[in-house]
Amino acid sequence: MSNHLDQLREELDQVNIKILELINKRGRLVKEIGDIKKSQGMKAYDPVREREMLNHIVEQHEGPFEYSTIEHLFKEIFKAAKELQEDDYQKTLLV
Amino acid sequence: MSNHLDQLREELDQVNIKILELINKRGRLVKEIGDIKKSQGMKAYDPVREREMLNHIVEQHEGPFEYSTIEHLFKEIFKAAKELQEDDYQKTLLV
Repeated sequence: MSNHLDQLREELDQVNIKILELINKRGRLVKEIGDIKKSQGMKAYDPVREREMLNHIVEQHEGPFEYSTIEHLFKEIFKAAKELQEDDYQKTLLV
Repeated sequence: MSNHLDQLREELDQVNIKILELINKRGRLVKEIGDIKKSQGMKAYDPVREREMLNHIVEQHEGPFEYSTIEHLFKEIFKAAKELQEDDYQKTLLV
């Protein structure tokens, strides 16, 4: 039983690192999208597109978490990426 | 350029769904670990183990997000999984 617990914990650690990698990959993609939009004179942040992404995510969700929990987590992930774009913008202003 | 934007957005949607799948996989693992621990008379929630997981994640982190952002996001993900264990416990009590 204890071996099974160790095995599950190891699997959990691997899942954590995969989530980390994907959150960072997501950050890089959002930054790249923001850079292109800014170069075209568009605002990087688009609340309509964000709502569409969230709807698409929730549609694919099958549990075990509540839909509201998934929405909350992704809003936090979106917010972090938005702050990354803003930080970058602030840095540009300071140069 | 617009095609490149569409391509990046598509990639972003795929990353979102992968994150969703991993968060849910994580939820199922945490639930399974909690069930085993409870069956052995142990408390499901272990703040020391949680801190260790967080340290391990932060060690692997290479950006573009700040370390504090990664800690914040994972604390939210951990909290959600903890609530899942507690919900389950509450349901057991009500049966």
